Amino acid sequence: MTERIYNFSAGPAVMPVEVLQEARENLLSLGTSGIGILEHSHRGKAYMAVHEEAEALCRELAGISADYQVLFLQGGASLQFSMVPMNLLGAGATADYLVTGNWSQKAVAEARRCGDVHIACSSEDRNFAYIPKTCTFSAKPAYVHYTSNNTIYGTEFAAEPENPTGAPLVCDASSDIFSRPLPVSKYGLIYAGAQKNLGPSGVTLVIIRNDLVERGPKELATMLQYRTYAADHSLYNTPPTFGIYIMGLVFKWIKKQGGLAAVEQVNRDKAGKLYRYLDESRLFRATADRDSRSLMNVTFVTGDAARNDKFVATAKKAGLDGLKGHRNVGGMRASLYNAFPPAGVDALIDVMREFEAHAS
Amino acid sequence: MTERIYNFSAGPAVMPVEVLQEARENLLSLGTSGIGILEHSHRGKAYMAVHEEAEALCRELAGISADYQVLFLQGGASLQFSMVPMNLLGAGATADYLVTGNWSQKAVAEARRCGDVHIACSSEDRNFAYIPKTCTFSAKPAYVHYTSNNTIYGTEFAAEPENPTGAPLVCDASSDIFSRPLPVSKYGLIYAGAQKNLGPSGVTLVIIRNDLVERGPKELATMLQYRTYAADHSLYNTPPTFGIYIMGLVFKWIKKQGGLAAVEQVNRDKAGKLYRYLDESRLFRATADRDSRSLMNVTFVTGDAARNDKFVATAKKAGLDGLKGHRNVGGMRASLYNAFPPAGVDALIDVMREFEAHAS
Repeated sequence: MTERIYNFSAGPAVMPVEVLQEARENLLSLGTSGIGILEHSHRGKAYMAVHEEAEALCRELAGISADYQVLFLQGGASLQFSMVPMNLLGAGATADYLVTGNWSQKAVAEARRCGDVHIACSSEDRNFAYIPKTCTFSAKPAYVHYTSNNTIYGTEFAAEPENPTGAPLVCDASSDIFSRPLPVSKYGLIYAGAQKNLGPSGVTLVIIRNDLVERGPKELATMLQYRTYAADHSLYNTPPTFGIYIMGLVFKWIKKQGGLAAVEQVNRDKAGKLYRYLDESRLFRATADRDSRSLMNVTFVTGDAARNDKFVATAKKAGLDGLKGHRNVGGMRASLYNAFPPAGVDALIDVMREFEAHAS
Repeated sequence: MTERIYNFSAGPAVMPVEVLQEARENLLSLGTSGIGILEHSHRGKAYMAVHEEAEALCRELAGISADYQVLFLQGGASLQFSMVPMNLLGAGATADYLVTGNWSQKAVAEARRCGDVHIACSSEDRNFAYIPKTCTFSAKPAYVHYTSNNTIYGTEFAAEPENPTGAPLVCDASSDIFSRPLPVSKYGLIYAGAQKNLGPSGVTLVIIRNDLVERGPKELATMLQYRTYAADHSLYNTPPTFGIYIMGLVFKWIKKQGGLAAVEQVNRDKAGKLYRYLDESRLFRATADRDSRSLMNVTFVTGDAARNDKFVATAKKAGLDGLKGHRNVGGMRASLYNAFPPAGVDALIDVMREFEAHAS
């Protein structure tokens, strides 16, 4: 078997080896069923057990009460950008959005197709290098939406934003969900594409408070109403069974690590070590403001575009893949999701030190 | 490894063993990349090659010209029930639907949320046991929609329905796509959830004529416009990469079988053998009219509900799984998609003969 390399991809991203190994063992036969995980009917007992375990583990990890539905959808965060306002932004109402990057902007654009949007804050003035400290909310928003982690810009909310409006807080948590404890009761709705911290692309986790499920107009297309998924335990139509299976394995792996508090500690250690090196380096520097730094995506530059490219190429040769930053920021990005191994951070710092020594 | 059993599930359904074996080998490292297929960035070279090969093989198998887009979506046929009218049924226009079962009815219900629907024919009068021979079309339909194979009722169109309207023909081909040659040029749009003949659940194949891509209103949510997928080669957002990968492997497998004409012959042989037995049996009988029989889903009964249940249990003990029919028809259903092995049909007939001998 080919040796695995360090994969710093922003998503789809590295997954726990144990999860991949278990999936591999079940591709031709799920347990002793004689039928592979991809081939089981979504109405059969074997898959139903997989489906129910994934939901149960999700609830257990985040302490999700019966006041919330845990749903498995398709279409990624991009479809949620539309489903949220379609379901929650009633006629004549306004939704408040905190704009902290590209994904927030896309969410705003889709919401504007449905109704009025008020921008409660924005960090666009400095290319989204920080998380704004204050917001100005509208008088009576239908909901307040924010993006908890900004993959492109390497920024992350340290905690939920203040929300004095009393309106439901809605969060696109695609890139930091389950990287730390999640106080679900503070939220009305949380959504996340799976392909960073939860599993493969093609499945979207939605955690929604019961009272919001029924807020969507019944005139909406059936597949665009949250109640469709809530009423049938995400089995109204054929769900993405393999994605849900993998998500369940990832939940099991997180539990084995000690749960969300334990993975947070590992994530703090990994990112902390890299930021400490960046703060000491004379060549590299982090692009995000210190108090807004993401534990998931560490963005950094040398200050010289050609040198950035050379570093990315050098790192790739050393078996460190996916370090090229997004074009909106340039430079480098090291994505350190839950499954990214601590040894990979050490390897990166070694390569950076070596590169810095030769550059000076 | 557990021995594989015969899986007659209507979907998700049996897949080619070679495909599962190849996927298994690439879960921890796609080729020599050191990164598993689930973990590769959708913007990286390794995944791009997978994505492009899947599209190229799809085009090759069905002889799809440059007049059509081949798109990979999410949400299954159920979301297409809405996307088709949202994009193609303009204000004040009427769409014609051929109603041959449960899925056609669901498609009609979603279209009615968007505009006027004219029912061109229906076989509901005899519980959808047949494909109607004639249709009455509206004066100037925006499109004509039909379901080529009806999984629940075991019926299938032997060929495209007559369409004298000149309007684009739209087909839900979820359960028989690529089971035989597909004359794409007769269609405006073809869609199919992958989980029967093409791959795992969670990816939807859409083949759409270029002129129809632009028909959708630009006010629609971005993720609900076909142009979004056409403009970015289905890479506007993160696609369901694993599903597309598996679909590509299935296409490669079909090509290796000799292409669509060759798999059609195998499918005719498999279903033909089972129907011949049913026509001779004194205990079992097929439920669909002879001229409307599906090659994909063979539905049959004994005429006695308790005896049906006993047969399903007997077959399950013999290693034949998933034979219980849908509650709308009762009895049994043997789904014989492309990947279902001919030896499984022989095994089923053996068990039926044995059961019949003891029942008389």
